[in-house]
Amino acid sequence: MYAAGDVRVEERPDPAITAPTDAVIRLAATCVCGSDLWRWRGTDPVTQPTPMGHEYAGIVEEVGPAVRNVIPGQFVVGSFMASDNTCPICQAGYQSRCANVEFAGAGGAQAEMLRVPLADGTLVATSQLPPDSLVPDLLAASDVLGTGWFGAVAAEAGPGKTVAVVGDGAVGLLAVLAARQLGAERIIAMSRHEPRQKLALEFGATDIVTERGDDGVTVIKEMTGGLGAHSVVEAVGTQESMLQAIRSTRPGGHVGFVGVAHGVTLPGEELFYAEVHLLGGPAPVRRFLPGLISLIEDRAINPGKVFDLELPLADAAEGYRAMDERRAIKALLRP
Amino acid sequence: MYAAGDVRVEERPDPAITAPTDAVIRLAATCVCGSDLWRWRGTDPVTQPTPMGHEYAGIVEEVGPAVRNVIPGQFVVGSFMASDNTCPICQAGYQSRCANVEFAGAGGAQAEMLRVPLADGTLVATSQLPPDSLVPDLLAASDVLGTGWFGAVAAEAGPGKTVAVVGDGAVGLLAVLAARQLGAERIIAMSRHEPRQKLALEFGATDIVTERGDDGVTVIKEMTGGLGAHSVVEAVGTQESMLQAIRSTRPGGHVGFVGVAHGVTLPGEELFYAEVHLLGGPAPVRRFLPGLISLIEDRAINPGKVFDLELPLADAAEGYRAMDERRAIKALLRP
Repeated sequence: MYAAGDVRVEERPDPAITAPTDAVIRLAATCVCGSDLWRWRGTDPVTQPTPMGHEYAGIVEEVGPAVRNVIPGQFVVGSFMASDNTCPICQAGYQSRCANVEFAGAGGAQAEMLRVPLADGTLVATSQLPPDSLVPDLLAASDVLGTGWFGAVAAEAGPGKTVAVVGDGAVGLLAVLAARQLGAERIIAMSRHEPRQKLALEFGATDIVTERGDDGVTVIKEMTGGLGAHSVVEAVGTQESMLQAIRSTRPGGHVGFVGVAHGVTLPGEELFYAEVHLLGGPAPVRRFLPGLISLIEDRAINPGKVFDLELPLADAAEGYRAMDERRAIKALLRP
Repeated sequence: MYAAGDVRVEERPDPAITAPTDAVIRLAATCVCGSDLWRWRGTDPVTQPTPMGHEYAGIVEEVGPAVRNVIPGQFVVGSFMASDNTCPICQAGYQSRCANVEFAGAGGAQAEMLRVPLADGTLVATSQLPPDSLVPDLLAASDVLGTGWFGAVAAEAGPGKTVAVVGDGAVGLLAVLAARQLGAERIIAMSRHEPRQKLALEFGATDIVTERGDDGVTVIKEMTGGLGAHSVVEAVGTQESMLQAIRSTRPGGHVGFVGVAHGVTLPGEELFYAEVHLLGGPAPVRRFLPGLISLIEDRAINPGKVFDLELPLADAAEGYRAMDERRAIKALLRP
């Protein structure tokens, strides 16, 4: 990305192993993330040409001499945050904040090949080479599925719970899927876009609410005996969506916020009297990857459905444009 | 309280039963709360003469016709928030946010007698009439012990955990006691006042840190292998103390914040990347009261030690003054 709205696909040197813990992967597919749009729209500045993309799945091409857990030829999925998976933070399940964390997308995953640091702690191999039909599902696990899943886990979605999801992007929709898998009783998707509503229902939503902001809060309260939802997933990252999520949650309930915060300031007094659990941040996707890959290989879930646009990598800019204009939920790019 | 710094003890009519669920209590003791100082200092405005005090323990004098759980003559302790203890929020353990919540201190607990609403869901009786020596301990359970305990529970203090406590008022000191009771491995009290440091050590602190703000954060990080504490209790309520608490917590760790927030605004981006659990608010003291009363009756804990000044009720103003000037940790008032 050269500037807001200016994405170009160019020839660049192949990535190479630079540390003994690296792997290089040939990507089966990559994609555009909702969080990439912050820069496409100019909300986050682009000060120099920047390799884009941080979601990846594909075949290991080469590994550094210290890598033990994956070998060339395996199909792997990794998180957008590279982790050693051995430090105390990783062991507690917060690999996205690993003591030695690196951004896995530094080299740009919207590409044919990607160098992934800390390969042993970051990559998870599938049980066998997957058929092409599973590639979108596996790619989704790299970020949006893992992130939606973390949102649902952070919100403590589970049996007997009413879960509301604020945000109908890929992450929000996959939080619906996660809440269903986690056994939630009632799942309210907040969306005013018909194709997304349909996918939410397919993923397991029991209710659709079209109201937003405080009107949305009012509807959630009405649906929950005046109390609010037990669990709310925030998957947008704006001030309005954070307050909507907090205000939709009953006292003692849980908010899982996974939309990358932009310009959010939480009023301390309101938070104090809301008395809700808050947990959010960059999802520790690595924690969930083995289980998610299993569910995908068993065809128990189909998260790849969030890709409603598939383009050759060369047309990456059109993928950004379609997502920005909400013509597409999420664009998959084929190298 | 007539205005900031102007507390007067006056004759007022005895409180009477006004709802069938009320009880009237003759107080064995009452006290001044750190949160009362917000008004004493003018931080919170006093627009009209206001009955003060919300901490109470004493003998039931009279109950309304609908009260079933307590009878006249029993010694009871209640939370500063009156709750029905039957609604779904109470059942989940968040009685301070009961669907029918009332402020138990509305009539002013710095008095000889107090009307307590929702007596069945609010008051807990001791197993027998306590000796006078236990009255300060039982009074502490009404707020500061219950609040410190909630802070420690919200911060998930427990075996194997390093717990840091920000704030050396009665609540912070009792959060130290709670962390010890909950089995925490290491308990770091942040205090620069020698009498409070001594009490913290007596309550179970293993370490004292005198640095504050970001210097305090640096010390906590150094003490925890660069990671931060697992659990941090915030017991002040200012912007500085909240940020100190969040920044002292390792990713995936827990912040329990019980200082009444004043002028706090949390930066969303920092909170996102901190990736800590946050839970706070008015403590659901009622959840903990039966267990706390038991521990006190068994003399397993001595929370009444936070009262380092005892005055007749008539000298209430001196109690405020001594606490404001940090000459006393907490002032007990004898009616």
